Amino acid sequence: MAPVLEPYFKQVDSMADSFIDRLRKAVAIPSISADAAHRPAVVKMADFLENELTTLGAHVERRYLGEQHPGLDLPPVLLGRYGDDPKKRSILVYGHYDVQPALKEDGWATDPFTLHVDEKDRMFGRGSTDDKGPVLGWINAIEAHKKAGIEFPVNLLMCFEGMEESGSEGLDNLIKQEAQVFFKDVDAVCISDNYWLGAEKPCLTYGLRGVSYFGIEVSGPGQDLHSGVYGGTVTEPMTDLINVMSTLVNNKGRILIPGIYDQVAPVTPEEEALYADIAFTMQDLYDGIGSKTAIFDDTKSTLMARWRNPSLSLHGVEGAFSAEGAKTVIPAKVIGKFSIRTVPDMDPEKVEKLVQQHVEWEFAKLNSNNTFKFHPLHAGKWWVSSPKHWNFTAAAKAVEQVWGVKPDMTREGGSIPVTLTFEQQTGKNVLLLPMGSSTDAAHSINEKLDKKNYIQGTKMLGAYLHFVAEEPITE
Amino acid sequence: MAPVLEPYFKQVDSMADSFIDRLRKAVAIPSISADAAHRPAVVKMADFLENELTTLGAHVERRYLGEQHPGLDLPPVLLGRYGDDPKKRSILVYGHYDVQPALKEDGWATDPFTLHVDEKDRMFGRGSTDDKGPVLGWINAIEAHKKAGIEFPVNLLMCFEGMEESGSEGLDNLIKQEAQVFFKDVDAVCISDNYWLGAEKPCLTYGLRGVSYFGIEVSGPGQDLHSGVYGGTVTEPMTDLINVMSTLVNNKGRILIPGIYDQVAPVTPEEEALYADIAFTMQDLYDGIGSKTAIFDDTKSTLMARWRNPSLSLHGVEGAFSAEGAKTVIPAKVIGKFSIRTVPDMDPEKVEKLVQQHVEWEFAKLNSNNTFKFHPLHAGKWWVSSPKHWNFTAAAKAVEQVWGVKPDMTREGGSIPVTLTFEQQTGKNVLLLPMGSSTDAAHSINEKLDKKNYIQGTKMLGAYLHFVAEEPITE
Repeated sequence: MAPVLEPYFKQVDSMADSFIDRLRKAVAIPSISADAAHRPAVVKMADFLENELTTLGAHVERRYLGEQHPGLDLPPVLLGRYGDDPKKRSILVYGHYDVQPALKEDGWATDPFTLHVDEKDRMFGRGSTDDKGPVLGWINAIEAHKKAGIEFPVNLLMCFEGMEESGSEGLDNLIKQEAQVFFKDVDAVCISDNYWLGAEKPCLTYGLRGVSYFGIEVSGPGQDLHSGVYGGTVTEPMTDLINVMSTLVNNKGRILIPGIYDQVAPVTPEEEALYADIAFTMQDLYDGIGSKTAIFDDTKSTLMARWRNPSLSLHGVEGAFSAEGAKTVIPAKVIGKFSIRTVPDMDPEKVEKLVQQHVEWEFAKLNSNNTFKFHPLHAGKWWVSSPKHWNFTAAAKAVEQVWGVKPDMTREGGSIPVTLTFEQQTGKNVLLLPMGSSTDAAHSINEKLDKKNYIQGTKMLGAYLHFVAEEPITE
Repeated sequence: MAPVLEPYFKQVDSMADSFIDRLRKAVAIPSISADAAHRPAVVKMADFLENELTTLGAHVERRYLGEQHPGLDLPPVLLGRYGDDPKKRSILVYGHYDVQPALKEDGWATDPFTLHVDEKDRMFGRGSTDDKGPVLGWINAIEAHKKAGIEFPVNLLMCFEGMEESGSEGLDNLIKQEAQVFFKDVDAVCISDNYWLGAEKPCLTYGLRGVSYFGIEVSGPGQDLHSGVYGGTVTEPMTDLINVMSTLVNNKGRILIPGIYDQVAPVTPEEEALYADIAFTMQDLYDGIGSKTAIFDDTKSTLMARWRNPSLSLHGVEGAFSAEGAKTVIPAKVIGKFSIRTVPDMDPEKVEKLVQQHVEWEFAKLNSNNTFKFHPLHAGKWWVSSPKHWNFTAAAKAVEQVWGVKPDMTREGGSIPVTLTFEQQTGKNVLLLPMGSSTDAAHSINEKLDKKNYIQGTKMLGAYLHFVAEEPITE
């Protein structure tokens, strides 16, 4: 039986101004996790959230993760619970209350820490969409239910961290520790920390690529040399490195390392059908990259390349001359950096082995007297869920109810490592349910959240909790 | 008739302490041309030299070259003349009185601007060997002749500049202007601003390689992109650039650009014979590069590669990720930097055309939708003189007289652009007559000049003037 949501929606609409005011207060706290000098503001933001939640009757516990480095405490993780009814489902939501750095001088049109609502109802401010708006969406949903006297449909468990923009230090361990403690009754997980594929159509996200990052180092001379004196007489590390780097990928995006594609899951007819109706145009891509230098000229190939095929990018060279101008140096030690975006069913360990074998083989072919070293720098695994899971079905119904349209089922090319951690540690389905759109400029200047996305998004999050409370179990 | 030099040599020996004291005073003036804040010290060094010269009876004129940039005057060039006898030959000597930067914190064992003479009679201090020692060598020679009452054998013209370590700004024009004015009677030119090939045996240098420096730029996206979002969907400029860069040279030092070697002068039997007796061992090379990663394992191939064959070095990439760590960026615009060391009979304009044709062809083969630009950044021509010229014969006799050994006839892999300018503008033979040795660490920390090289070098410069005064004209 479909839940009756009209009273909740009406309540949200009536409280829109106070919800915007809540966002204004949150944006005003410059909780920049990357900057040690702003650490007190990050903690102040935790205090603000804790106060909002406890005022509404939620139970909040702070978890301390130790020091980031001597003398600098990591900000607390807030673990919250609203409702404790064993007859209801328990839904765990995750968000983060820290933000990217922002300075007016970077090019912001308005002060980044003063919420500015323009004539198009765009709400500009650092953290508006990433991720304070979505976090407050959950709190708004609680408050609207309370004010309207509507029974809250689930037990809501919350995990809000303050270090997401700086590597989520310590979070994985905490999730592991709490998996069978604070999170033990969790039935499903929902993360609202990504964006619609475009500007108009909502989506649910069921997959993320992983990333395996590598450095390859070539060294020879004891120090940098002058090319006038030594050019032609010494085996130059850059020559070897550029040769090896040129064997990794071609400019059509094809990875040239043997065996990589053997691990890529074939496209099923079921998956293939998903691409047809995705609201995405080549112009969306051109707008994103600022040019028309795309590899493919159709959206299906482009989306498959972004979501479900591996890619390899050459990022740069450490140790070589990288400034403007002309310096006649023979660099003594150079490290080429590249990474592979990984997809199902690639195994990061196997990827690492294939890469190592390939680069060592290519270097061996050069018959060089330089020294070669392979550095696997980090690896995060891909994540993919089933868009047919009841957690997704519930979210799709909520989207349709609020936005009047079935959401696109999307994947993303980048990674959100905590997604996989929640899935692995709780053993439950994880859903990515974005509130903002692709135009929100998260991490950029003039970050914004449309008022529509915030208010309708608050309705959507609440509606999701109603649908997920009663969705029949599938898969 | 060989000149009688014993009285001069005795006089130099007797004045050794005062010559070292002169060097001590010169080293104490931190005439760093690269640093605007040190510009007054550069001018102070010019004052010092002018005073030393006029005290000895030389005529000195200051030439002003204008402003380096608004508010910062270039240091003066000192044009000196000692002797004005039309019956004598006029010899022009060049040197520079500015120095490389130096800070104790860079790793100097002693204060770089306080001359420190150690137990092995090594005289440490910035500028000791590059180029204050040699410049003072000429002044010492004048003084010793004067004190001993020996007639000075030539009219000595001097050109001492204060911007050599910073590109000799304005000097080429001045030499051109003065070629038929201050320098109009010049019979030969001598430059003492380079080093012996090794630590023990003197040399005369008759050739320098040129250098042609290039940038190749590949651009596509409007701004740097995130490899998670766009990897696999956009034609990455780095992939194109690395591919083109990999076609330029192999790690055995072979340039892969068609046509380059067609321009290289063949080795004559006469030239070939010069390599046999050069005092140079593979260990000298290994000491220089700090490793054994040489291309050749014999000295003849190594010297030919350094002196008379072209080489190509890949210097680095501008615009890509070059720091430590792991950044998942797709750089939007990257510029690969490389240079070719050029040799007789390579024509810089033809080299530029061959390089441009090659890189544009290699880029075209990639069938990329990125944009390619070729940037010739600068070109300086090679210089080669005949070691049989009477200017060299005279210098060889001076070396043998002072050091008891015939000098090696050497070339250098790097460039000293002023050499070619003097040759072209005066139309006279130019000789490079080094005072210091390869172990002097010019441009490095703990720069030094051995007392032996300074005092015997002063003898050698004076002896050279005697021999060159009466050497029969050949070539």
